Amino acid sequence: MVDATSNRRIRLGMVGGGQGAFIGAVHRIAARLDNEYELCAGALSSDPERAIASAKDLGLAADRSYGSYAEMASSESAREDGIEAVAIVTPNHTHFAIAKAFLEAGIHVICDKPMTVTVEEAESLQEAARNAGRILAVTYNYTGYPMVRQARAMIERGDLGVIRVVQVQYAQDWLSEPIESDGQKQAAWRTDPARSGAGGCIGDIGTHAYHLACFVTGLEVEALCADLSAFVDGRRLDDNAHLLLRFSSGARGMLWASQVAVGNENNLQLKVYGDKGGLAWRQEQPNELTFTSLGEVPRRITRGSPAVVDAAVRATRIPAGHPEGYLEAFATIYREVAAAIRAARDGKAPAANVLYPTAEDGKAGVAFVEAAVRSSAAGCVWVEF
Amino acid sequence: MVDATSNRRIRLGMVGGGQGAFIGAVHRIAARLDNEYELCAGALSSDPERAIASAKDLGLAADRSYGSYAEMASSESAREDGIEAVAIVTPNHTHFAIAKAFLEAGIHVICDKPMTVTVEEAESLQEAARNAGRILAVTYNYTGYPMVRQARAMIERGDLGVIRVVQVQYAQDWLSEPIESDGQKQAAWRTDPARSGAGGCIGDIGTHAYHLACFVTGLEVEALCADLSAFVDGRRLDDNAHLLLRFSSGARGMLWASQVAVGNENNLQLKVYGDKGGLAWRQEQPNELTFTSLGEVPRRITRGSPAVVDAAVRATRIPAGHPEGYLEAFATIYREVAAAIRAARDGKAPAANVLYPTAEDGKAGVAFVEAAVRSSAAGCVWVEF
Amino acid sequence: MVDATSNRRIRLGMVGGGQGAFIGAVHRIAARLDNEYELCAGALSSDPERAIASAKDLGLAADRSYGSYAEMASSESAREDGIEAVAIVTPNHTHFAIAKAFLEAGIHVICDKPMTVTVEEAESLQEAARNAGRILAVTYNYTGYPMVRQARAMIERGDLGVIRVVQVQYAQDWLSEPIESDGQKQAAWRTDPARSGAGGCIGDIGTHAYHLACFVTGLEVEALCADLSAFVDGRRLDDNAHLLLRFSSGARGMLWASQVAVGNENNLQLKVYGDKGGLAWRQEQPNELTFTSLGEVPRRITRGSPAVVDAAVRATRIPAGHPEGYLEAFATIYREVAAAIRAARDGKAPAANVLYPTAEDGKAGVAFVEAAVRSSAAGCVWVEF
Amino acid sequence: MVDATSNRRIRLGMVGGGQGAFIGAVHRIAARLDNEYELCAGALSSDPERAIASAKDLGLAADRSYGSYAEMASSESAREDGIEAVAIVTPNHTHFAIAKAFLEAGIHVICDKPMTVTVEEAESLQEAARNAGRILAVTYNYTGYPMVRQARAMIERGDLGVIRVVQVQYAQDWLSEPIESDGQKQAAWRTDPARSGAGGCIGDIGTHAYHLACFVTGLEVEALCADLSAFVDGRRLDDNAHLLLRFSSGARGMLWASQVAVGNENNLQLKVYGDKGGLAWRQEQPNELTFTSLGEVPRRITRGSPAVVDAAVRATRIPAGHPEGYLEAFATIYREVAAAIRAARDGKAPAANVLYPTAEDGKAGVAFVEAAVRSSAAGCVWVEF
Repeated sequence: MVDATSNRRIRLGMVGGGQGAFIGAVHRIAARLDNEYELCAGALSSDPERAIASAKDLGLAADRSYGSYAEMASSESAREDGIEAVAIVTPNHTHFAIAKAFLEAGIHVICDKPMTVTVEEAESLQEAARNAGRILAVTYNYTGYPMVRQARAMIERGDLGVIRVVQVQYAQDWLSEPIESDGQKQAAWRTDPARSGAGGCIGDIGTHAYHLACFVTGLEVEALCADLSAFVDGRRLDDNAHLLLRFSSGARGMLWASQVAVGNENNLQLKVYGDKGGLAWRQEQPNELTFTSLGEVPRRITRGSPAVVDAAVRATRIPAGHPEGYLEAFATIYREVAAAIRAARDGKAPAANVLYPTAEDGKAGVAFVEAAVRSSAAGCVWVEF
Repeated sequence: MVDATSNRRIRLGMVGGGQGAFIGAVHRIAARLDNEYELCAGALSSDPERAIASAKDLGLAADRSYGSYAEMASSESAREDGIEAVAIVTPNHTHFAIAKAFLEAGIHVICDKPMTVTVEEAESLQEAARNAGRILAVTYNYTGYPMVRQARAMIERGDLGVIRVVQVQYAQDWLSEPIESDGQKQAAWRTDPARSGAGGCIGDIGTHAYHLACFVTGLEVEALCADLSAFVDGRRLDDNAHLLLRFSSGARGMLWASQVAVGNENNLQLKVYGDKGGLAWRQEQPNELTFTSLGEVPRRITRGSPAVVDAAVRATRIPAGHPEGYLEAFATIYREVAAAIRAARDGKAPAANVLYPTAEDGKAGVAFVEAAVRSSAAGCVWVEF
Repeated sequence: MVDATSNRRIRLGMVGGGQGAFIGAVHRIAARLDNEYELCAGALSSDPERAIASAKDLGLAADRSYGSYAEMASSESAREDGIEAVAIVTPNHTHFAIAKAFLEAGIHVICDKPMTVTVEEAESLQEAARNAGRILAVTYNYTGYPMVRQARAMIERGDLGVIRVVQVQYAQDWLSEPIESDGQKQAAWRTDPARSGAGGCIGDIGTHAYHLACFVTGLEVEALCADLSAFVDGRRLDDNAHLLLRFSSGARGMLWASQVAVGNENNLQLKVYGDKGGLAWRQEQPNELTFTSLGEVPRRITRGSPAVVDAAVRATRIPAGHPEGYLEAFATIYREVAAAIRAARDGKAPAANVLYPTAEDGKAGVAFVEAAVRSSAAGCVWVEF
Repeated sequence: MVDATSNRRIRLGMVGGGQGAFIGAVHRIAARLDNEYELCAGALSSDPERAIASAKDLGLAADRSYGSYAEMASSESAREDGIEAVAIVTPNHTHFAIAKAFLEAGIHVICDKPMTVTVEEAESLQEAARNAGRILAVTYNYTGYPMVRQARAMIERGDLGVIRVVQVQYAQDWLSEPIESDGQKQAAWRTDPARSGAGGCIGDIGTHAYHLACFVTGLEVEALCADLSAFVDGRRLDDNAHLLLRFSSGARGMLWASQVAVGNENNLQLKVYGDKGGLAWRQEQPNELTFTSLGEVPRRITRGSPAVVDAAVRATRIPAGHPEGYLEAFATIYREVAAAIRAARDGKAPAANVLYPTAEDGKAGVAFVEAAVRSSAAGCVWVEF
């Protein structure tokens, strides 16, 4: 259970997330939940009127509601009480320029995923962060779930032995019809190559699945074979992705991401099998993890189980049986970024158990999308990674 | 999705909830989540040193960290910027005096359940609230879940027809052993008649089950027959409760509450059957509701289902498939109390769709415990209610 | 896996179970499944034409298709190759006379439940069986499931410690409307006191729940308090039963049986909690058992688990993961009666691990219904048992 | 509910399935369950002593217990009362010669899967069956489940619209360790190329998954890309198979088969998504099917649901809520072969709703294994099919 001292709250700004946006509000709740941040400034919309109205809704001071991110970066960096970190919650193609501006202004960045649209941009941002000595975090939020932390720790300490097989899926159904043609805003930019980049479903949710699999297993993908499809008439980006994965350790995997799987809301699942055990986790039922040790019966591990490790306890706020969800997991990422920012204030590296996704993870996600698109375009052939 | 304007945030105080407490931190997160409250003052512990340290942790101003609730009530009511509401998160037996002091000081009260230890006290508090024109809310938090709201709305509009049978259970296992003897603080006061009142398990969790059943069905219990047991050696209050219920409408029900049901973490469940349909809901899987219309196949309704009604949508922050949990449901109660406080600022009653548990609900819960204890003590006979 | 030698197959007759009947066909499959019986004779219907047609369907020899059970009992007992056992699958009120006739003719009896309509009849049958030295088995078929055997064995060896709480339910919905008025044959006799006896739902399925709870826990009920309701207009017998149970060991329980619980097909469930562990089993998912040892995480035990005991293995035919169901469990009862009949051929008692429900169990079931009806009629008061 | 007239029972022989075998006993129960067959002859083991002892156990006449299948084929075909059909339950590599012998002797064949080891053999058998005018059925038993029939019928009538995505998996864990080295008989022949053919896991269970997907969707695979692995040290055949599938209709799919997925007993699952709906089915919970129509909430269809179609009802014996399992599904295949044999007696084709897997299905399964092995050996490239 965490309540940060409020006089140590981190001053936060936000780019994007104005009225009508989805993920911006999620970031704000996540920032607020553990009392680690104070929202002080924003460039909340590219539409000036909406930006002002949104800032008013959120109680921002009028002089800290900006018409552009560039103005915000320069003004805030000049203030004594300027923001220490910024949350970027705009469409994918804009992440790069915005993040760069804030890093160069000496402000820590918390960026929604995918971090950039190209690997080149990702590397450029990494360099900018390094040069500025600032944190660049990417909100692969699903790794904030306590049972995901538990799974990772169990694999790390050898409970599953040598990993053989990794099965990961992320299935949704909200793009089963061409709703982008009907003006649905979330669908419109996600299916537009100019705003989303070359990956559709693979970039929007496939990257989450990829990151989750790597985070939990600690393995690296060395080659993939991807079959991307756009099933809905007129759709310009993939809405279904089928991938075979080869890990450098010799493990094999499958990744399925779909936004046309009718009956699936947000069905992210991971199954990992090693020579000593297997485990399974589902995002829609995040408070439990099924683990089977070879030769024993399956066990249901929950946030409060006797079997739970420190890494999971640290990501938990309330007793088992009292379900935590998506916002709590998202808040855990924010809390860990806060810990890293505090360490940075003191010129230190964060503790080893601070596990928020970094620029390195962000770049890997972009590289994954690029490789998948390349493989599929070449006729679904194997691509080194 | 709600972000209240922060310049309209409600100034909140807290009694109890210092270092080491459980439910106080829950109330604080709930108050923070939707940005409706600002914590400004506290009498966080009866132990002065812990009170000061806790206040510091929370970033309270030194002059607003009080040594006693009485001092806090009088000082805050005298301040221009004094708290408008107080959250009471102390053991049961102290609720009455604290709530009374704040109501009489003109401060709204959000009280943990059970509201008081006796019905007499409950009525006295109701009167105090009425006289002061202040809100007295009780945190029967489980009714804040979107799917509980959905269930209530479906029954209200007749989807189940005339209700016949109500099955409710609340099973835990954390008191399966005499941990109160080992200094476990949460267990110690809950099993102590002096601090908990005459009900153990029936008061601690049975009242939640009772409130949930009444909230969802809109029915009233007119008689009950209770068999309370204390299975653990030396335990002074019941740790298992078996009840038969008769509703004034003619419906029949069963209520089981237990804290010795090994393998259950926080297993609150409700099933309701009418002549046109049936439904089932489980707190540990709160994002879904199973509904069967007579003669049709069972359907799984989630927070984002096409079938979802306004009452559920209002209690939801994120899309279906992104699980919400206990803290979000708790926060919904806080948000609705905020709406009522704002209406009260303007001298108005809150909107009809604001459904937080009131003093009336608080009193009913206490009356329920009293009746159950009386029935069981008399040999498990029927008691009018 | 069992294949009995067919030259040792037991010659079986059947009373009832003609065309259009449900449970008769179930008994025949159960008898056939393990190749332990050969159906040789029948008085398959009280309607002579249907009896003949049904016998023809089943390939019975014309001279062994009887117009009445009495004729069948006397003729078969006179034949060298006469039936050794008879299955009685007629409505409840006829069981007594039929069973008596066959026992007196020296033929073993396998009787559907409830064994009789009154305790007096049950005792008379017990005596008849004793005098004749013949087996009288009652098909409380749910105890034939491997995981039910597993549960019983685990409790017997102490895995749950001292039992504290027993929760059992049997919920169906097929009588939610007055289908007995529409000529539905199964409903008509089950809701008719003249054919069913004084219990409706409590007799039809409540007895299964009661037997299951006693079978698994090894406990005896010493008192009960029953609230029986007939919710459907014009129904003459109860269609919902709520009971509190007190076991002679000091354990407490609840039993709910309903045939108006919309959305439930055949939802028989048992949960048992002791001071060292808890377990749960559901008939609709019969191949698994959830067990939690105090202080450990819940485990899922299946028919093929490392944790499975002999008593479960003996009741299993195929590997775990290959689901077995209702017919297999029913067949296990038949198989165990066969073992007892073979032992009887040799003048021996069956092995201790032969667990089919006996006349004693049959009588207990009838006594349970009588007590429940008496309790409810007296205003839902406690009745010694 | 089916009880065949016993005087019309089909005379059945068996090759393989002696003492200690697994699948032979399953075939016998399946043949017995609906009373359609009478076991009259056998060549139950290649070990003469075991063959005799096994025949005695099963009550076969001494003169119909044969030392070799060849002798059995010729002797039985010469008898007036000779067997009409034979069940072949020997290791894969022997199926071809045995099936051929019986077909040429004019005896119908029910062959365990895979039908043969090579496509060439499969075609030769097809021809033999055609020439003899005899039935050649292959026991892809999983298609006998009522809810699989329901799924197929729903797709056929358009409930899912145009199929886009097919996800199928079959996960087991019993080969997680090199138990073939320890003399485990089932493992020994399944991991031996000489007896199993070129496919290990892909042949043993992958073919079931493949057949299920094609049976339910009515689609044909036109190309596949397979990554087969042998994770266990020293294993000579694959124990894990990852495949991408392209259907001729344009649909895409994934198939995963594994025998090293710790925690999975017999986890066969199918998910199908079209432009109007999606469905999911799991073999370990075979009595239900989840179906979502686009824009509606998920529904749980069971064997007795109002939504159930004739094709499912025909494959069901008892009411919903009374679970049926693996043996019942297997028996349904046997029942349908019986219907075809009876039609053949009368020189007719079976009714259109008789859906047992034919020689064509058998050949397709063998071709699938060959293609997968070829793809994987060539570096996991796409192979036309």
